[in-house]
Order: sequence, then structure tokens, then C-alpha cells
Amino acid sequence: MAPTVYDVTTWPGATVSPYTDIGQVINEIIADIHAQQTTKTTRPGAVVYIPPGHYLLQTTVNIDLGFLTIKGSGHGFMSEAVRDGTDTTNWIETLPGSSHVQIVNNNQAAFYVNRATDPVANGRLDAIVFQDFCIDGMTDSKPYLPGNGKTGIQVQYDTDSLRIEGMGFVYLAHAIVARNADAFNITNNFITECGNCIEMVNSSIVGKITNNYLISPWAGNSIFMENNDGVLISGNSLLWGARIQFKAVHRACITSNKFVSNFSGMIVHETECDENLISANQFRRQFGDGGPARNDDLYGMVQINGNSNSVTANSFSFSVPPANIVPSGATPTIVLVKGGNSNFLATNLISANVGVKVVLDGSTSATKLLYTCSSGQLQDYTGGNCSLVPIP
Amino acid sequence: MAPTVYDVTTWPGATVSPYTDIGQVINEIIADIHAQQTTKTTRPGAVVYIPPGHYLLQTTVNIDLGFLTIKGSGHGFMSEAVRDGTDTTNWIETLPGSSHVQIVNNNQAAFYVNRATDPVANGRLDAIVFQDFCIDGMTDSKPYLPGNGKTGIQVQYDTDSLRIEGMGFVYLAHAIVARNADAFNITNNFITECGNCIEMVNSSIVGKITNNYLISPWAGNSIFMENNDGVLISGNSLLWGARIQFKAVHRACITSNKFVSNFSGMIVHETECDENLISANQFRRQFGDGGPARNDDLYGMVQINGNSNSVTANSFSFSVPPANIVPSGATPTIVLVKGGNSNFLATNLISANVGVKVVLDGSTSATKLLYTCSSGQLQDYTGGNCSLVPIP
Amino acid sequence: MAPTVYDVTTWPGATVSPYTDIGQVINEIIADIHAQQTTKTTRPGAVVYIPPGHYLLQTTVNIDLGFLTIKGSGHGFMSEAVRDGTDTTNWIETLPGSSHVQIVNNNQAAFYVNRATDPVANGRLDAIVFQDFCIDGMTDSKPYLPGNGKTGIQVQYDTDSLRIEGMGFVYLAHAIVARNADAFNITNNFITECGNCIEMVNSSIVGKITNNYLISPWAGNSIFMENNDGVLISGNSLLWGARIQFKAVHRACITSNKFVSNFSGMIVHETECDENLISANQFRRQFGDGGPARNDDLYGMVQINGNSNSVTANSFSFSVPPANIVPSGATPTIVLVKGGNSNFLATNLISANVGVKVVLDGSTSATKLLYTCSSGQLQDYTGGNCSLVPIP
Repeated sequence: MAPTVYDVTTWPGATVSPYTDIGQVINEIIADIHAQQTTKTTRPGAVVYIPPGHYLLQTTVNIDLGFLTIKGSGHGFMSEAVRDGTDTTNWIETLPGSSHVQIVNNNQAAFYVNRATDPVANGRLDAIVFQDFCIDGMTDSKPYLPGNGKTGIQVQYDTDSLRIEGMGFVYLAHAIVARNADAFNITNNFITECGNCIEMVNSSIVGKITNNYLISPWAGNSIFMENNDGVLISGNSLLWGARIQFKAVHRACITSNKFVSNFSGMIVHETECDENLISANQFRRQFGDGGPARNDDLYGMVQINGNSNSVTANSFSFSVPPANIVPSGATPTIVLVKGGNSNFLATNLISANVGVKVVLDGSTSATKLLYTCSSGQLQDYTGGNCSLVPIP
Repeated sequence: MAPTVYDVTTWPGATVSPYTDIGQVINEIIADIHAQQTTKTTRPGAVVYIPPGHYLLQTTVNIDLGFLTIKGSGHGFMSEAVRDGTDTTNWIETLPGSSHVQIVNNNQAAFYVNRATDPVANGRLDAIVFQDFCIDGMTDSKPYLPGNGKTGIQVQYDTDSLRIEGMGFVYLAHAIVARNADAFNITNNFITECGNCIEMVNSSIVGKITNNYLISPWAGNSIFMENNDGVLISGNSLLWGARIQFKAVHRACITSNKFVSNFSGMIVHETECDENLISANQFRRQFGDGGPARNDDLYGMVQINGNSNSVTANSFSFSVPPANIVPSGATPTIVLVKGGNSNFLATNLISANVGVKVVLDGSTSATKLLYTCSSGQLQDYTGGNCSLVPIP
Repeated sequence: MAPTVYDVTTWPGATVSPYTDIGQVINEIIADIHAQQTTKTTRPGAVVYIPPGHYLLQTTVNIDLGFLTIKGSGHGFMSEAVRDGTDTTNWIETLPGSSHVQIVNNNQAAFYVNRATDPVANGRLDAIVFQDFCIDGMTDSKPYLPGNGKTGIQVQYDTDSLRIEGMGFVYLAHAIVARNADAFNITNNFITECGNCIEMVNSSIVGKITNNYLISPWAGNSIFMENNDGVLISGNSLLWGARIQFKAVHRACITSNKFVSNFSGMIVHETECDENLISANQFRRQFGDGGPARNDDLYGMVQINGNSNSVTANSFSFSVPPANIVPSGATPTIVLVKGGNSNFLATNLISANVGVKVVLDGSTSATKLLYTCSSGQLQDYTGGNCSLVPIP
């Protein structure tokens, strides 16, 4: 075996059992990598393998080197919410499994990517990989915020080409939090029963969030992002409290996603966001458990705010019993154009069990509404500063 | 090596060579896992590794525990149909390869996921993974139905977060059959020369079928699904007999797929299906080998049946020599709206080598046809209960 | 360990250190596979594992057998361009890492897939896999063409179901070049700082390019393809010099991609290309470093040429300072329909910091322009042989 391949269960340098504290073991492995790889041209990093097993994590792993791959054999998801709501006397398994890392302490991160240096002077952390294992917060309850305060992966230092793939996350307040990530790749993960799924805070450059399950309830977000240009969000299934929240995110491509939510606000521009494309998504608003909702039914299934955003070829499906609409008696909003100029909505299909509206805020201008709603479905507060081609 | 990591070629507990019967070996491994993992909180499962090699499977593997990952090193596909139609005297390889599992007996499943218990009382089977190996039916001929009657993976018990990824399937009547699957993930597989590729029978909850090759001839389906809400089918390449058949499937998102077929019926709503989105797909109907076709050319490249389905921003390309159109002399149907209210077709491009039609059945109402066909291309049996904005 | 599993660092048959010449070691492994697998039904191939480390490649690997998987533990990307433009005195790592293969000689390929036989008589090379390692050209500078002349993977022989997944490529003139590939699968790679990313030359059959980062500057292409029918290009992020160049490519599905370029020509039909679908993509043209540009700003962000291509539900965002537009004072072209009949542009949003045009060449006919531009934005050289429904 090459010296760059570590197995947490067999590495002789560990001073504690990985089943007792896998965090300490991985930190000792990282220290060993530092000891082995001592010059700037001899630091290829390593792979740390986590075989199937139940591992407690008492110590946060601190990743301060590039090119580290931490890899298991399975995300091992089990629905802890279903388990906790059921008589499990006769259940055969009651814990998640496969390569299963359990965070012991509240308000703790399992993996913390940081380096006590300066990214500009000392270089970024490149090509770190988390792959195919489970991070479990152990105990929690909806909506998981503030909940146990646990975080799966927290990235505090500038990174390039960070990869999170095939992972499972469950019962965490925050599954993934990253700042200043360049060309990140979050694909094929199963993130569920978490307060927030993906939070790209501070800023990031481009990025790709594809082919994931992102499942969260009503308090947090499926994806939160601020100060980004050019992210691609495609092929994801966002469930039960689907919500993508943007602050100053421009030219994103949000396509081919499936959204389901018991709440308003599946895509939200919290501040001005420009030239985003929202196309070929299926949005389903339904009534179900949970809440209190952050927003009422006038908030919009989608709320855009900024210039030249396009909302094209989507399907919006709304089904909420009239008695459950908030405020009582209100006509729900499908899309709210909250601000900005020249937003563009075309060939969207709206289906609903009650009368619904597309709403243009009075501050907006020159919105184009082409085959998206009927004349009667348009609530125009602009005094006619828009163009409507109604569905015939 | 952790006790949860098994290699079928080196595990000392096997009573038979894996090359003779890998099914028995994996069953013995599963029995060993049961013997090792004895309480409901100490069952993380295991990973079973299949190195490259030709393995016969005489005994069906019965998977009755969660968190099992079965993993190879390559789907090892070879086109057995090309091979069987060619003089292979001078071929260098004539079998599929990599981690290559060959089903010996007709009417046998290679992997059967089931548990002699009740999912509600005893819990579901969670996070089972099939990854990166080949399941081969060995001998068969088109259309592979009923063919050798072999099945790759059959899931009979309720599952959660089942994963099938990077697999190869060839010469099977049924590649994947699953019932009552919640949040399944079928991605990046190469399923070809099979009668049916993916059959989600009975029912399922959400689901994701992404980034696959699904290649089958004329008798079966690329994807068959019944009683589902919210599946995402995106980024797949469906070939030669491309067909997605739905029964009571609602709010699916079928986007960014490439369809090629020598036959009618690439998306079919067999019973009422509502609010599905079909967007940004390229459909190619051509003439080629195979048949008899299940449906004639009046059936529709796409046949929708239900309410508020949307068909937007697709490209339909039809090219069949006039002499081969069935019934003889008929004008082929591109899209047939067979039933339902308020279906929505917008900004689709139809190109064809002959005159073609979009057809509205007399039972339908309020279909919107916006920039999808010319006036002459509309065959309206509703007596005008529709809205047409013709392509200018 | 099964005899089909090789580790380049521990295989006893190697006559040279893999760190000195991994190419020679893998060639010796391939020779060993040939020696071990001697009949046409006993050739399952093997997996060659490259653990994390810095490996020099002096000898090109020649792959002349099917079912070979070459696999590492991480693409190990580091931006060599950022590194080379920075004072790295205090950088902690200055080389890419993980499973890091460095090509020593200029004008050399790292991996050459070929067989001194005839594909028809002797069979194709099937199911070869490159997975999760880095191929690095070591030294180069923009635009990397002709640059160091190095190639990552060159496929000269007919293949079926070639897989390139999770790989990194950096500082190469050509990352991937393949001819006559059937059902190739290029997914989840990180190809950057290369002259050309993916070149499918000569011809190919169907194909799938999904979920990749494709990053190249101004001299080459993100994707070049000739003589293909039915490729799917979806879910990719193409950056800084994004360009898909087609020659005789038909019925492609280009959807859900994010394009960014400092140059014109993000999708180009170099010769007649028919019935391609370009839908739900976000295109961003901006001003930045690099050049000379191959094309001026009249060339079109997208240039289509052929029949019945559709461009639907895309977002085009153009932002170039007026002083930097070429030719000086010109009105930039967003889409140029250069040739052909019945092309179809619908519900695209154009946003721009200057006046822009959609241009129909005089040779074109019957283009449909539906809610894509205003009357003033149309430059029609056909004398009215088109249909315009202007944005209101």
C-alpha cells in the first residue's frame, strides 16, 4: 500500500479507536501527512478511507492541506425523522449505516477546512474531496434550526475545485457551509433532514450544484448563496421545503430541477439579482406538515428581484386547500416580480386548485409576460409598465 | 482491513469459488454480516468488492439487510448484439469484462432485495448500493422479451435511498425492477440490449433517473413507472426504442434528455397523468430495424393524457420513408393529446420529411398550442375546444 | 487481492519506479494482463490503481485491450496559471496533487488507446475507463495551443462505451481526443487550462458529455465534434473561452449548460448542422483578458448554420465596453443565422449593455424569430424571408 493511502481502522499511528473518535484519528493522519510531505513540491496529499462502520466523532477534523480525499463506501442514509416518529421496537436497524460518522457534541462541525495562513500569500486549499460517506447529527427535530447546531462540512479558507460527491448528510443544522469557493462541485449527494443543505456564504466564483437530493423543512434553505456569478444548479430534486435563496447572485443557470414545497418561496432573490435563468423546472406547491411558514401565500412560489431575469418553460403546480391559504381569503401568488427592469417570463404553465396571480410590484418596469398567465391572472401594480401576451 | 470490507475473491468464508457461483459467495457474505452485526444499533452493513473477472452466478443473491454496497471496477460493457451478428473468429475479446457477473439460469434474478418481514413494523431497507459492475444475461436476442427471462436487480421490499450507479446491464429481459422505492437514485448507468431498462412498479415516492444510457429495442420500455409523484428524469440518452411509459405519474420533470427511436411512443401516458413537464428534450424518430412496432404512426411520438401537462421547448425530428409509414398513406402524429384538460404545448420545433400532425382527441379540452405547429398541422377533433397560436 | 487488481506503487513486476516513469509501469502491467489473459473468453481486463503521489510519465501508455480501468484517488487540480502568475515564495503547495501524472516530454500523449488490428475484423476496444486522477502537462502558457503539444488521452482506435469520469486535466494542448467513439461517456471531469478540452474527431455515434467543467482560453474549443448524430451535452460549465464547435453534427441536445466567454462564438456550426436543440442555457459574454480573438463581435455569441435548429428558452447576457467592441463601432451580434432553412428561435432573453442584433444571413430562409428580439434588433438580410414575432 502506498504511504498516501490511509484506512482509519487499520492505521497504526492512531492513538484512539476510530469508533470512539474518528475525528482525532483523522487529525493524527493529517499530522502524519504533514510529517511525510515536507516541501512545496512533495505534497500530493492522501486518501483517507472510512470502511463501513459506526464511528463517533468527538474532535472536529481540521483540514489544512490540499488534495486530501476522505472517502467511504456508502452514504448510509436512514430517515431518522421517520424512525423517531415510529415505534421501532421491531425495527431491524435503527441507525444510519455504511461509512457512518456521528457528531457527538452540539454546535460542533465534523469537518473544518481552514489553514492559519493567508490564501493570497500562501495559496488556496485545492481539490479537497469528500466522497461517499455519511455525516449524522444523531439527535434533532424539525426544523433542525437552530436544532443541535451541528455542521457537516464547514469551509472557512479559500478553496479551488472543492468536491463533495456521493455524500449523505442527516440531522444537521448545516450540512455544507463554504465561503470563497472557486469552481466548487457538489454532485450526487443525499442531503436530507438538515436545517440548511448548502450555504455558500460571503462569496464564491462560478460553481456547480448538480444531481443532488436536497431535502429540508421550513426554517432554512436548500441552497443559500451570496455574491456569486455564474453558478449552475441543475438536475436536483429539492423537497418538502425547497428553497433557493440568493443575495447578489447573477447569471445563474437554474434548470431541470424538481421542486416540492409545503411553503412559499422556492426561489427567492433576497437582494437584487440579475440575468438569472430559471428554465425547465417543475415547481410543486402543496399543503402539508410543518411551519410556521416564513412567508405567506402572497410571497410567490418564485420571487424575483433584479433585472433581466428569465423564467421560461417551467411548470408551476399549486394545490393548497382554500382554508389553509394565508392570509385567509387571499389569492395566492405564483410569481412575484418584486423589483427590477426587463424581467422575462415566457411559456410557463400555471395550474392551480384555486384562483392565483402573477404579481408585478409597482417598482418594477418593462416586465415581459408572454404566455405565462391569463389577463385575469395578472396583478399589475405598475400602472401598465409591462407587456402582457396572455394565454389564450 | 476492516471486517466490513469483503472481496469476493479472497474472503476465506466462501465455500465455493466466486468464478463458479458468485451468488452463493455473496449470500455467504451476507450471512456472515448477519452473524457479525447482531443488534439494531450495530448494523452498518458492509461493502462487497467484485474485482475484474468473469463470474458465473448460479444462485440468486438475496439482500435482506440495509447499507450493503456491492461494488466492482467497471461496467465492462461489450455489445453482445454486435458480437452475435458478426463473424468473431478474429475478435480478441468476445465477452463483456471488468467486474462481469453472468446469470446462468433463465428466468432468474441476479440480485433480489427482499426481507421476510414487514416494512412498517420492521423498517425499510435503506441505502443499498449497486456500483460499477456488469450484470450480463449471457445469451439472448432482440427484443429480449420474454427472451431469457433474466433480471438484473429486483427489489421487492420497500426501500429508501436505493442507489444504482455506474452499472452495466446487458442481455436481460429486465435490467432493474423495483417496487415501493422512496428517493431512489439511478445515475450514470449503461443499460443496453435489455428488454426493459427501468421498471418502477406498484408505486414509488419522488426519485431521480439521471445521466444514464437507456438502450432497448421495441418490445419493452426505457422507463416504466406507475403511481409516482415528482420523479426527475433528466440528462439521459434513450436510444433506438426510447420509451417512457407512465401510469398515474404526476408532476414529473422530464428534461434535457435525448430520445432516439425507430418507433412511435417515446413518452406515453397509459392512464391519466397530470402536470408533468416535458421540456428541452430532443426527440428523433427514424426508420430502422426491428419490430413489429407496438403502435402505428398515428400513435404520436409523444402521447399525453391528463391535465395540465406541459410540452415546451422540445425539438421533434421525424424522418421515415413514406413507404414505411403505418398505416399506409397516413399522416404521422408528432404529439397526440389523447385526453384531459388544459394541456400546454409551446415553442416546440417540429421538423419532418413528410407532412405531420399534432392531434387533439375529441375528449380533450382547452389545450393550448402555442408556436408548436402551423394551422395546417393541427388535427382538432374537439370542435374548436382548444387555443392555437400557429407558427407563422 | 485478485490478480486483476494492480497498484502502480506495489506491483512487483515493475522494472522502474512509478514515480520515475508511471507510463512504463502501466505498459508493463498491460503486458502482464496480456500474459495472464490469453483467450478471447478470458479477458476481463483489470483495474490499475494510482494512489495519491506525484508521478512522472516519460513513456506513453499504450492501451490495446478492452475493459481496462485506470483509477486514482482525486483529480488533484491546482491552478497552474494562477500559480505561474503569482509570487509563490510562501505558497505551501505549488504542484497539483492527489493521483498526479506529469507528462515529461513535449508533443507526447499520456495515454494512447490503440490496437494494431482492425476494429471490424478484430473487434472494438470496449469499456475502457479513466477515473479520478490528474493528467498534468507541467509547463505551459495561454492559450496552450500549440503550447507544449501534450495530450492527456488520445483514442485512435474504435471504442464502445469509453468512460472518462472524475478526471482532472491541466496545462495540456489537448485534454481528450477521440475518433470513432460509440456511446462515449464524459462526465464529472475538471478540464481546465487546456488548449482544447474535448475533441471528437472523424466521427462518433451518439455520446454524452455531462456535468463537466470545461475551461479553456481563446485558441481552441471546449468541445469540438464532427460527424455525429445525437450527442447530449448537458449540465456543463464552460468557462472563459466557452466554445462548442460542430462540423456536420445533427440532432444534438445542448441543454442546461452555463457558458462564459471573453469572446464571440460560444456555439458554432462550422459546416451545415441540422435539427440541433439549444435550450435552457445561460450564455454570458464579457470582456476580459486574452486574445487575439478568432472572431469579431459580428460573429455571434451563437452562430447556427443548417436546417431546423432550435434555440429556445436561453438567456443571452452581453457586456463589453463599447470601446472594446470589434470592429470599432459595430453593433454586436447575439445570434447569427448563417445559413439554412427553418431555424427556430423562441423565448430567448437578450440583455446587453449596448445595442445588439440578431442577424439573418441573406442565404437563409424561413427562420422563425418568436419573442427573441425586438423589431429594431433584427438585422434581416433575407429581404423578409423570415417570420418575426417581436418582443413587445
